[in-house]
Amino acid sequence: MPRRSVKREILAAAINMMHQRGFNATGVQDITAAAGVPKGSFYNHFESKEALGIEALNAYWRVGLGWLDILNSSDAPPLSLLKTYFRRAAKAIKDENYRTGCMVGNFAIEMSGASDLIRAQTASVLSVWSRAIEDCVKRAQADGSMRRDLDAKTIARFLLNSWQGAAMRAKVDRNYAAFTDFETVAFKALSA
Amino acid sequence: MPRRSVKREILAAAINMMHQRGFNATGVQDITAAAGVPKGSFYNHFESKEALGIEALNAYWRVGLGWLDILNSSDAPPLSLLKTYFRRAAKAIKDENYRTGCMVGNFAIEMSGASDLIRAQTASVLSVWSRAIEDCVKRAQADGSMRRDLDAKTIARFLLNSWQGAAMRAKVDRNYAAFTDFETVAFKALSA
Repeated sequence: MPRRSVKREILAAAINMMHQRGFNATGVQDITAAAGVPKGSFYNHFESKEALGIEALNAYWRVGLGWLDILNSSDAPPLSLLKTYFRRAAKAIKDENYRTGCMVGNFAIEMSGASDLIRAQTASVLSVWSRAIEDCVKRAQADGSMRRDLDAKTIARFLLNSWQGAAMRAKVDRNYAAFTDFETVAFKALSA
Repeated sequence: MPRRSVKREILAAAINMMHQRGFNATGVQDITAAAGVPKGSFYNHFESKEALGIEALNAYWRVGLGWLDILNSSDAPPLSLLKTYFRRAAKAIKDENYRTGCMVGNFAIEMSGASDLIRAQTASVLSVWSRAIEDCVKRAQADGSMRRDLDAKTIARFLLNSWQGAAMRAKVDRNYAAFTDFETVAFKALSA
Protein backbone atom coordinates (compact mmCIF):
# COMPACT_ATOMS: atom_id res chain seq x y z
CA MET A 1 0.00 0.00 0.00
CA PRO A 2 1.55 3.37 -0.94
CA ARG A 3 2.21 5.84 1.87
CA ARG A 4 -0.28 8.41 0.63
CA SER A 5 -3.11 5.94 1.01
CA VAL A 6 -2.13 5.04 4.57
CA LYS A 7 -2.28 8.71 5.48
CA ARG A 8 -5.69 9.03 3.86
CA GLU A 9 -7.01 5.97 5.74
CA ILE A 10 -5.76 7.33 9.04
CA LEU A 11 -7.34 10.72 8.38
CA ALA A 12 -10.69 9.21 7.36
CA ALA A 13 -10.79 7.08 10.51
CA ALA A 14 -9.81 10.08 12.66
CA ILE A 15 -12.57 12.28 11.24
CA ASN A 16 -15.17 9.62 12.02
CA MET A 17 -13.93 8.73 15.47
CA MET A 18 -13.10 12.23 16.66
CA HIS A 19 -16.48 13.44 15.44
CA GLN A 20 -18.30 10.61 17.19
CA ARG A 21 -16.34 10.31 20.44
CA GLY A 22 -14.43 13.57 20.70
CA PHE A 23 -10.68 14.16 20.62
CA ASN A 24 -9.69 12.86 24.04
CA ALA A 25 -11.74 9.68 23.88
CA THR A 26 -10.05 8.71 20.60
CA GLY A 27 -6.65 7.11 20.98
CA VAL A 28 -4.01 6.88 18.27
CA GLN A 29 -4.26 3.10 18.54
CA ASP A 30 -8.08 3.23 18.05
CA ILE A 31 -7.51 5.25 14.89
CA THR A 32 -4.84 3.02 13.36
CA ALA A 33 -6.91 -0.07 14.22
CA ALA A 34 -10.02 1.42 12.59
CA ALA A 35 -7.95 2.46 9.59
CA GLY A 36 -6.48 -1.04 9.32
CA VAL A 37 -2.91 0.24 9.27
CA PRO A 38 0.03 -0.65 11.52
CA LYS A 39 0.13 1.41 14.72
CA GLY A 40 3.76 2.27 14.00
CA SER A 41 2.83 3.96 10.72
CA PHE A 42 1.03 6.81 12.52
CA TYR A 43 4.04 9.00 13.24
CA ASN A 44 5.34 8.57 9.68
CA HIS A 45 2.35 10.60 8.56
CA PHE A 46 1.39 12.86 11.46
CA GLU A 47 3.61 14.75 13.84
CA SER A 48 1.19 14.29 16.72
CA LYS A 49 -2.41 13.46 17.56
CA GLU A 50 -2.94 17.23 17.84
CA ALA A 51 -1.70 17.73 14.25
CA LEU A 52 -4.05 14.97 13.09
CA GLY A 53 -6.89 16.63 15.02
CA ILE A 54 -6.34 19.83 13.06
CA GLU A 55 -6.30 17.99 9.74
CA ALA A 56 -9.47 16.13 10.73
CA LEU A 57 -11.17 19.41 11.69
CA ASN A 58 -10.15 20.99 8.37
CA ALA A 59 -11.40 18.01 6.37
CA TYR A 60 -14.72 18.05 8.24
CA TRP A 61 -15.01 21.80 7.67
CA ARG A 62 -14.42 21.49 3.92
CA VAL A 63 -17.80 19.74 3.70
CA GLY A 64 -19.46 22.52 5.71
CA LEU A 65 -17.73 25.10 3.56
CA GLY A 66 -19.47 23.64 0.50
CA TRP A 67 -22.89 24.22 2.08
CA LEU A 68 -22.08 27.91 2.39
CA ASP A 69 -22.64 28.07 -1.39
CA ILE A 70 -26.35 28.01 -0.53
CA LEU A 71 -25.92 31.56 0.81
CA ASN A 72 -24.73 32.79 -2.59
CA SER A 73 -27.46 31.18 -4.64
CA SER A 74 -29.66 33.44 -6.73
CA ASP A 75 -32.64 31.09 -6.44
CA ALA A 76 -34.31 32.87 -3.54
CA PRO A 77 -34.19 36.09 -1.49
CA PRO A 78 -31.26 36.30 0.99
CA LEU A 79 -33.47 35.83 4.07
CA SER A 80 -34.79 32.55 2.62
CA LEU A 81 -31.26 31.48 1.75
CA LEU A 82 -30.22 31.96 5.38
CA LYS A 83 -33.11 29.76 6.54
CA THR A 84 -32.31 27.13 3.93
CA TYR A 85 -28.65 27.20 4.90
CA PHE A 86 -29.27 26.67 8.61
CA ARG A 87 -31.76 23.89 7.81
CA ARG A 88 -29.12 22.17 5.70
CA ALA A 89 -26.63 22.39 8.56
CA ALA A 90 -29.24 21.08 11.02
CA LYS A 91 -30.07 18.21 8.65
CA ALA A 92 -26.46 17.03 8.91
CA ILE A 93 -26.88 16.81 12.69
CA LYS A 94 -30.26 15.06 12.39
CA ASP A 95 -28.89 12.58 9.83
CA GLU A 96 -26.48 11.33 12.51
CA ASN A 97 -29.43 10.91 14.91
CA TYR A 98 -28.12 13.87 16.91
CA ARG A 99 -25.36 11.67 18.33
CA THR A 100 -22.34 13.49 17.00
CA GLY A 101 -23.29 17.17 16.74
CA CYS A 102 -21.07 19.65 14.93
CA MET A 103 -17.38 18.75 15.05
CA VAL A 104 -16.41 22.43 14.98
CA GLY A 105 -18.49 23.10 18.11
CA ASN A 106 -17.31 19.87 19.71
CA PHE A 107 -13.65 20.78 19.26
CA ALA A 108 -14.35 24.34 20.41
CA ILE A 109 -15.75 23.06 23.68
CA GLU A 110 -13.45 20.14 24.30
CA MET A 111 -10.09 21.44 23.10
CA SER A 112 -9.99 25.24 23.57
CA GLY A 113 -8.50 24.87 27.03
CA ALA A 114 -6.00 22.13 26.19
CA SER A 115 -4.62 22.97 22.74
CA ASP A 116 -3.85 26.47 21.50
CA LEU A 117 -3.31 25.10 18.00
CA ILE A 118 -6.76 23.50 17.86
CA ARG A 119 -8.33 26.53 19.51
CA ALA A 120 -6.77 28.86 16.90
CA GLN A 121 -7.93 26.65 14.04
CA THR A 122 -11.45 26.44 15.46
CA ALA A 123 -11.52 30.24 15.91
CA SER A 124 -10.42 30.65 12.31
CA VAL A 125 -13.15 28.31 11.02
CA LEU A 126 -15.82 30.11 13.05
CA SER A 127 -14.56 33.44 11.78
CA VAL A 128 -14.77 32.41 8.10
CA TRP A 129 -18.21 30.89 8.81
CA SER A 130 -19.47 34.11 10.46
CA ARG A 131 -18.26 36.24 7.55
CA ALA A 132 -20.08 34.13 4.97
CA ILE A 133 -23.29 34.55 6.97
CA GLU A 134 -22.59 38.27 7.36
CA ASP A 135 -22.49 38.80 3.58
CA CYS A 136 -25.92 37.22 3.25
CA VAL A 137 -27.28 39.21 6.22
CA LYS A 138 -26.10 42.40 4.50
CA ARG A 139 -28.02 41.49 1.38
CA ALA A 140 -31.13 40.66 3.43
CA GLN A 141 -30.85 44.06 5.10
CA ALA A 142 -30.32 45.74 1.74
CA ASP A 143 -33.48 44.24 0.23
CA GLY A 144 -35.48 45.31 3.29
CA SER A 145 -36.34 41.82 4.62
CA MET A 146 -34.06 41.91 7.69
CA ARG A 147 -34.00 44.61 10.38
CA ARG A 148 -31.32 47.26 9.96
CA ASP A 149 -31.10 48.58 13.51
CA LEU A 150 -28.43 45.94 14.29
CA ASP A 151 -25.23 45.64 12.32
CA ALA A 152 -24.73 42.70 9.98
CA LYS A 153 -21.59 41.42 11.67
CA THR A 154 -23.24 41.28 15.09
CA ILE A 155 -26.33 39.55 13.66
CA ALA A 156 -24.18 37.03 11.77
CA ARG A 157 -22.07 36.10 14.79
CA PHE A 158 -25.23 35.85 16.88
CA LEU A 159 -26.91 33.57 14.33
CA LEU A 160 -23.94 31.24 14.09
CA ASN A 161 -23.37 31.05 17.84
CA SER A 162 -27.09 30.53 18.47
CA TRP A 163 -27.17 27.77 15.90
CA GLN A 164 -24.20 26.14 17.65
CA GLY A 165 -26.11 26.38 20.94
CA ALA A 166 -29.11 24.75 19.26
CA ALA A 167 -26.84 21.96 17.99
CA MET A 168 -25.64 21.42 21.55
CA ARG A 169 -29.20 21.19 22.89
CA ALA A 170 -30.22 18.87 20.05
CA LYS A 171 -27.35 16.57 21.02
CA VAL A 172 -28.58 16.42 24.62
CA ASP A 173 -32.28 16.11 23.84
CA ARG A 174 -31.75 13.87 20.78
CA ASN A 175 -34.40 15.69 18.80
CA TYR A 176 -34.90 18.57 16.36
CA ALA A 177 -36.76 20.89 18.77
CA ALA A 178 -33.84 23.26 19.46
CA PHE A 179 -33.36 23.85 15.72
CA THR A 180 -37.08 24.63 15.34
CA ASP A 181 -36.85 27.07 18.27
CA PHE A 182 -33.78 28.68 16.65
CA GLU A 183 -35.46 29.15 13.30
CA THR A 184 -38.76 30.33 14.77
CA VAL A 185 -37.34 32.90 17.15
CA ALA A 186 -34.29 34.14 15.24
CA PHE A 187 -36.02 34.68 11.93
CA LYS A 188 -39.21 36.15 13.35
CA ALA A 189 -37.26 38.50 15.61
CA LEU A 190 -34.74 39.54 12.95
CA SER A 191 -37.18 40.06 10.08
CA ALA A 192 -37.88 43.67 9.19
CA MET B 1 -9.56 11.39 58.06
CA PRO B 2 -13.22 10.35 58.22
CA ARG B 3 -14.70 8.80 55.09
CA ARG B 4 -17.18 11.61 54.48
CA SER B 5 -14.34 14.06 54.09
CA VAL B 6 -12.44 11.88 51.61
CA LYS B 7 -15.55 11.79 49.48
CA ARG B 8 -15.87 15.55 49.68
CA GLU B 9 -12.23 16.05 48.68
CA ILE B 10 -12.61 13.75 45.70
CA LEU B 11 -15.76 15.54 44.58
CA ALA B 12 -14.17 19.00 44.91
CA ALA B 13 -11.15 17.92 42.86
CA ALA B 14 -13.40 16.31 40.26
CA ILE B 15 -15.51 19.46 39.82
CA ASN B 16 -12.38 21.55 39.22
CA MET B 17 -10.62 19.15 36.93
CA MET B 18 -13.64 18.03 34.93
CA HIS B 19 -14.67 21.66 34.46
CA GLN B 20 -11.18 22.67 33.32
CA ARG B 21 -10.15 19.68 31.23
CA GLY B 22 -13.40 17.88 30.47
CA PHE B 23 -14.53 14.43 31.53
CA ASN B 24 -12.35 12.25 29.30
CA ALA B 25 -9.12 14.14 29.92
CA THR B 26 -9.54 13.70 33.67
CA GLY B 27 -8.41 10.34 35.01
CA VAL B 28 -9.46 8.83 38.33
CA GLN B 29 -5.80 8.88 39.34
CA ASP B 30 -5.51 12.62 38.50
CA ILE B 31 -8.51 13.26 40.73
CA THR B 32 -7.32 11.26 43.72
CA ALA B 33 -3.84 12.80 43.40
CA ALA B 34 -5.30 16.33 43.29
CA ALA B 35 -7.55 15.48 46.23
CA GLY B 36 -4.59 14.11 48.16
CA VAL B 37 -6.32 10.82 48.91
CA PRO B 38 -5.20 7.24 48.21
CA LYS B 39 -6.12 6.08 44.72
CA GLY B 40 -7.68 2.96 46.22
CA SER B 41 -10.18 5.04 48.18
CA PHE B 42 -12.00 6.17 45.02
CA TYR B 43 -14.26 3.14 44.60
CA ASN B 44 -15.20 3.18 48.27
CA HIS B 45 -17.01 6.42 47.57
CA PHE B 46 -18.05 6.34 43.92
CA GLU B 47 -19.38 3.47 41.88
CA SER B 48 -17.65 4.70 38.74
CA LYS B 49 -16.08 7.75 37.14
CA GLU B 50 -19.43 8.24 35.38
CA ALA B 51 -21.23 8.37 38.75
CA LEU B 52 -18.68 10.90 40.00
CA GLY B 53 -19.20 12.93 36.81
CA ILE B 54 -22.91 13.17 37.56
CA GLU B 55 -22.25 14.27 41.16
CA ALA B 56 -19.73 16.84 39.91
CA LEU B 57 -22.24 18.18 37.36
CA ASN B 58 -24.94 18.43 40.04
CA ALA B 59 -22.63 20.24 42.45
CA TYR B 60 -21.58 22.68 39.72
CA TRP B 61 -25.21 23.25 38.80
CA ARG B 62 -26.23 24.00 42.41
CA VAL B 63 -24.16 27.21 42.13
CA GLY B 64 -25.86 28.14 38.84
CA LEU B 65 -29.22 27.32 40.38
CA GLY B 66 -28.57 30.00 43.02
CA TRP B 67 -28.10 32.65 40.32
CA LEU B 68 -31.57 31.86 38.99
CA ASP B 69 -32.87 33.73 42.07
CA ILE B 70 -32.01 36.90 40.14
CA LEU B 71 -34.94 36.10 37.85
CA ASN B 72 -37.36 36.22 40.77
CA SER B 73 -36.12 39.46 42.26
CA SER B 74 -38.60 42.33 42.61
CA ASP B 75 -35.86 44.94 42.21
CA ALA B 76 -36.32 45.49 38.50
CA PRO B 77 -38.71 44.75 35.61
CA PRO B 78 -38.54 41.16 34.29
CA LEU B 79 -36.78 42.12 31.04
CA SER B 80 -33.97 43.78 33.04
CA LEU B 81 -33.78 40.76 35.32
CA LEU B 82 -33.21 38.52 32.30
CA LYS B 83 -30.35 40.75 31.13
CA THR B 84 -28.85 40.88 34.61
CA TYR B 85 -29.14 37.12 34.92
CA PHE B 86 -27.35 36.36 31.64
CA ARG B 87 -24.65 38.91 32.52
CA ARG B 88 -24.11 37.15 35.84
CA ALA B 89 -23.77 33.81 34.07
CA ALA B 90 -21.36 35.34 31.52
CA LYS B 91 -19.33 36.89 34.35
CA ALA B 92 -18.66 33.40 35.72
CA ILE B 93 -17.17 32.44 32.34
CA LYS B 94 -15.14 35.65 32.13
CA ASP B 95 -13.85 35.21 35.69
CA GLU B 96 -12.17 31.99 34.55
CA ASN B 97 -10.57 33.90 31.64
CA TYR B 98 -12.89 32.03 29.25
CA ARG B 99 -10.78 28.91 29.69
CA THR B 100 -13.36 26.59 31.20
CA GLY B 101 -16.73 27.66 29.81
CA CYS B 102 -19.97 26.28 31.24
CA MET B 103 -19.63 22.77 32.62
CA VAL B 104 -23.24 21.97 31.69
CA GLY B 105 -22.54 22.84 28.06
CA ASN B 106 -19.17 21.08 28.16
CA PHE B 107 -20.71 17.85 29.43
CA ALA B 108 -23.57 18.20 26.93
CA ILE B 109 -21.10 18.31 24.05
CA GLU B 110 -18.51 15.86 25.29
CA MET B 111 -20.62 13.18 26.96
CA SER B 112 -24.03 13.01 25.23
CA GLY B 113 -22.78 10.38 22.82
CA ALA B 114 -20.88 8.28 25.34
CA SER B 115 -22.98 8.23 28.51
CA ASP B 116 -26.76 8.04 28.61
CA LEU B 117 -26.69 8.73 32.34
CA ILE B 118 -24.73 11.97 31.93
CA ARG B 119 -26.80 12.93 28.89
CA ALA B 120 -30.04 12.44 30.86
CA GLN B 121 -28.74 14.49 33.79
CA THR B 122 -27.56 17.28 31.47
CA ALA B 123 -30.95 17.27 29.71
CA SER B 124 -32.66 17.53 33.08
CA VAL B 125 -30.49 20.49 34.17
CA LEU B 126 -31.13 22.30 30.88
CA SER B 127 -34.84 21.65 31.22
CA VAL B 128 -35.01 23.13 34.75
CA TRP B 129 -32.87 26.05 33.56
CA SER B 130 -35.15 26.73 30.55
CA ARG B 131 -38.27 26.67 32.74
CA ALA B 132 -36.86 29.24 35.17
CA ILE B 133 -36.14 31.54 32.22
CA GLU B 134 -39.59 30.84 30.79
CA ASP B 135 -41.33 32.10 33.95
CA CYS B 136 -39.45 35.39 33.70
CA VAL B 137 -40.15 35.65 29.96
CA LYS B 138 -43.87 35.23 30.71
CA ARG B 139 -43.73 38.12 33.16
CA ALA B 140 -41.84 40.27 30.66
CA GLN B 141 -44.52 39.50 28.07
CA ALA B 142 -47.27 40.24 30.59
CA ASP B 143 -45.89 43.70 31.43
CA GLY B 144 -45.60 44.51 27.74
CA SER B 145 -41.79 44.75 27.51
CA MET B 146 -41.21 41.54 25.51
CA ARG B 147 -42.86 40.61 22.23
CA ARG B 148 -45.89 38.30 22.51
CA ASP B 149 -45.98 36.87 19.01
CA LEU B 150 -43.66 34.04 20.11
CA ASP B 151 -44.49 31.73 22.98
CA ALA B 152 -42.58 32.02 26.24
CA LYS B 153 -41.30 28.45 26.23
CA THR B 154 -39.82 28.79 22.74
CA ILE B 155 -38.19 32.14 23.60
CA ALA B 156 -36.77 30.74 26.85
CA ARG B 157 -35.23 27.69 25.20
CA PHE B 158 -33.88 29.89 22.43
CA LEU B 159 -32.31 32.30 24.94
CA LEU B 160 -30.65 29.55 26.94
CA ASN B 161 -29.36 27.70 23.89
CA SER B 162 -28.12 30.93 22.32
CA TRP B 163 -26.34 31.85 25.53
CA GLN B 164 -24.69 28.42 25.53
CA GLY B 165 -23.59 29.04 21.95
CA ALA B 166 -22.14 32.39 23.03
CA ALA B 167 -20.28 30.66 25.87
CA MET B 168 -18.80 28.24 23.32
CA ARG B 169 -17.64 31.09 21.07
CA ALA B 170 -16.24 33.01 24.07
CA LYS B 171 -14.19 29.94 24.94
CA VAL B 172 -12.71 29.79 21.44
CA ASP B 173 -12.14 33.53 21.05
CA ARG B 174 -11.08 34.07 24.70
CA ASN B 175 -13.05 37.29 24.93
CA TYR B 176 -16.46 38.67 25.89
CA ALA B 177 -17.58 39.63 22.37
CA ALA B 178 -20.00 36.72 21.86
CA PHE B 179 -21.83 37.61 25.08
CA THR B 180 -22.13 41.22 23.94
CA ASP B 181 -23.51 40.04 20.58
CA PHE B 182 -25.97 37.79 22.42
CA GLU B 183 -27.27 40.55 24.66
CA THR B 184 -27.40 43.14 21.88
CA VAL B 185 -29.25 41.03 19.34
CA ALA B 186 -31.45 38.89 21.57
CA PHE B 187 -32.78 41.71 23.73
CA LYS B 188 -33.23 44.22 20.92
CA ALA B 189 -34.98 41.65 18.75
CA LEU B 190 -37.19 40.26 21.53
CA SER B 191 -38.25 43.56 23.08
CA ALA B 192 -41.80 44.63 22.36
